Amino acid sequence: MALSKKPTTGMKDILPEEMQIRDYVISVIKDTYGKFGFTSIETPCVENIANLSSKQGGDNEKLIFKILKRGEKLNVETATCEEDVVDSGLRYDLTVPLVRFYSNNAAQLPTPFKALQMGNVWRADRPQRGRYRQFMQCDIDILGEPSNLAEIELILATTTTITKLGFRNFQIRINDRRILKAMAAYAGFAEESYDSVFITLDKMDKIGIEGVKAELLANGYEEAQCDKYLELFVEIEKADNGVAYLADKLADYLDAEVMCSFREILDSVQATKADSFELVFDPTLVRGMSYYTGTIFEIAMPEFGGSCGGGGRYDKMVGKFTGKDVPACGFSIGFERIVLLLMESGFQVPTRPKQVAYLIEKGVTGDALCEIIAQAQKVRQDGTQVLIARMNKNKKFQKEQLNKEGYEEFVEFYKDPLKK
Amino acid sequence: MALSKKPTTGMKDILPEEMQIRDYVISVIKDTYGKFGFTSIETPCVENIANLSSKQGGDNEKLIFKILKRGEKLNVETATCEEDVVDSGLRYDLTVPLVRFYSNNAAQLPTPFKALQMGNVWRADRPQRGRYRQFMQCDIDILGEPSNLAEIELILATTTTITKLGFRNFQIRINDRRILKAMAAYAGFAEESYDSVFITLDKMDKIGIEGVKAELLANGYEEAQCDKYLELFVEIEKADNGVAYLADKLADYLDAEVMCSFREILDSVQATKADSFELVFDPTLVRGMSYYTGTIFEIAMPEFGGSCGGGGRYDKMVGKFTGKDVPACGFSIGFERIVLLLMESGFQVPTRPKQVAYLIEKGVTGDALCEIIAQAQKVRQDGTQVLIARMNKNKKFQKEQLNKEGYEEFVEFYKDPLKK
Repeated sequence: MALSKKPTTGMKDILPEEMQIRDYVISVIKDTYGKFGFTSIETPCVENIANLSSKQGGDNEKLIFKILKRGEKLNVETATCEEDVVDSGLRYDLTVPLVRFYSNNAAQLPTPFKALQMGNVWRADRPQRGRYRQFMQCDIDILGEPSNLAEIELILATTTTITKLGFRNFQIRINDRRILKAMAAYAGFAEESYDSVFITLDKMDKIGIEGVKAELLANGYEEAQCDKYLELFVEIEKADNGVAYLADKLADYLDAEVMCSFREILDSVQATKADSFELVFDPTLVRGMSYYTGTIFEIAMPEFGGSCGGGGRYDKMVGKFTGKDVPACGFSIGFERIVLLLMESGFQVPTRPKQVAYLIEKGVTGDALCEIIAQAQKVRQDGTQVLIARMNKNKKFQKEQLNKEGYEEFVEFYKDPLKK
Repeated sequence: MALSKKPTTGMKDILPEEMQIRDYVISVIKDTYGKFGFTSIETPCVENIANLSSKQGGDNEKLIFKILKRGEKLNVETATCEEDVVDSGLRYDLTVPLVRFYSNNAAQLPTPFKALQMGNVWRADRPQRGRYRQFMQCDIDILGEPSNLAEIELILATTTTITKLGFRNFQIRINDRRILKAMAAYAGFAEESYDSVFITLDKMDKIGIEGVKAELLANGYEEAQCDKYLELFVEIEKADNGVAYLADKLADYLDAEVMCSFREILDSVQATKADSFELVFDPTLVRGMSYYTGTIFEIAMPEFGGSCGGGGRYDKMVGKFTGKDVPACGFSIGFERIVLLLMESGFQVPTRPKQVAYLIEKGVTGDALCEIIAQAQKVRQDGTQVLIARMNKNKKFQKEQLNKEGYEEFVEFYKDPLKK
């Protein structure tokens, strides 16, 4: 078989220029989340196939890169289906592995446990511009904290990080799956139709309220129900305080404590947040993953159509592994989108060391070479970046190239010290 | 299928304590190699199966985690062998992907190109203590530098990094595949038997010179050849300068320039190196990978039986992808072993921020909560790590646990400010 120079379909090589920005973003993220008491953990990129196919991952489960059994356990000839030849796969997100990790190691972890994960995930999606089949995710999660302190800290930590990275004028949109459900109940939709109703509602920003109504009707829902439902959204928009309006309206359908806690999240973040972003109650926010049980949130960036991260509360997932539920809440940053936005804006990493290039003529060897190297070692100790390279025939071109890499100072060494 | 709490066989979860050390090691590595002008790059973890099965990887090719084809391309029922169902795999090292990367992107890269890679690799090895099927590798490589400046810089950069991590009294052992071959030629071994002779020679440190002789004889080599061969090693040991002795002895079997360049590497590193390590010519050093074409080296640590990293020159590998050879030389650090040694020595990460925990009684909400959060946000800006947590019923235990995580200062907030 011929060797292929290209990366596998849908994946990409990362060149030094982009890596510099990625490394910078990673360092800001680790440093800022660290200040909030999040500690880094890591799980293997490979998970048991049963864990990846447990219906926690929604559509992502259709996109798994599956890994072949090995040795005696593999018999391709007698196999009749995928299950016969596969025992594991590449993780498609960091949430399922985190919950497995927590279930496995809870005895050694503090309560609440505040985890930071940065790692690659894989999805065999149709390749498209700016979206790759391997990409970095960056998640923070708080496990074991039932109160809304979790949501407040997650939103503040995430927005502080994004602000430190230079972003302004972004929005955090927030909603609660229980509010979503109470609104549907208030309108008279049957519980089994909620998911279908929410899929339509999710399109509000694209097709508008008329579009949503048309699609609900087309899906066979009664016009009276639809009108009662959509009027809620109109009234929230009009109200001075949409949350207060809803709390009143949904009193019979929603535990008062849910609404009270939700308002406290809004008020606390509002009172302590930076000016770089707006916090907005968005009753049309749905979030696809079926594991969410409470608050949900999303980052919207003006520079970027669509979400740049999101998360929410998922109190029922640890129980799937251990039989005992543990409150859990997480927020994921769209790492690749942030890097893309920084690259496109011509962002320059702020703190770079002084860069000096030593160009050494080919004939310089022995003691003379030792002296040059010793000098470079000394200068490096002082914090300067020193490149040692043999001088090319076309010295001018070589310097131009090095200049593009950030080298601004050149020291030239010749066999005959009088030469220049 | 039941969900599994354990990681997949042979892989491990990384807890906060270890992650802190890993992150520290990564930052020292990136910073130090950066000072030598190495720039970070990344390749996908998944490579085309043809590239992974190209005989560059020696025995590692038997240990590949292979990835199933997807969609219409997969037909398990009609498949008769692995090749029918597999299109890619997880990389088993960073060298094959680097060479593919260089072949793919050379036009956008400087000459010489100094690459730093830190990334996971996977090998389906038999699980054993301290060895896992997913592990981090850390490689530096210089592509496009034909002179021994590459070897000198690689050895200095690697040893400077390991010294910065606190290691002392280690050894860099160095040899050259061409010297190995010339010694075998001098003794009269036929070229096709070199590999077999070297496999035996590689055991010298375990079975001694008598053991090597016995195994060579058992493998059918003539006693006269064996004696002539092994006498060389005895004489090198006795000589004031083993390299000078060999240069003279092998004059008819080895290009004088090879020996001259090899001595220059030894002299230059010797003259400029730190006191933390010894540089040693080791004529028994073999290194398994078949792709090496010149100098080879290895790190030996007194704390750790066996190698803690290694590398060498591989001038013929780029040509396998592009048809045109490019000089290349690399040095890989045993990242996992270094982390293990630091963990076992009770190493503490040097620079950690001040850690304060705010413990908030359950009843504290509303404006009071906002004030506490605002205060935390302010203190975080000043560089302090602040954990906000609800006070547990067993406050004493909670504080003890937090203390173990590094929190030394506690601030308690009560609903009734008079309480304490």
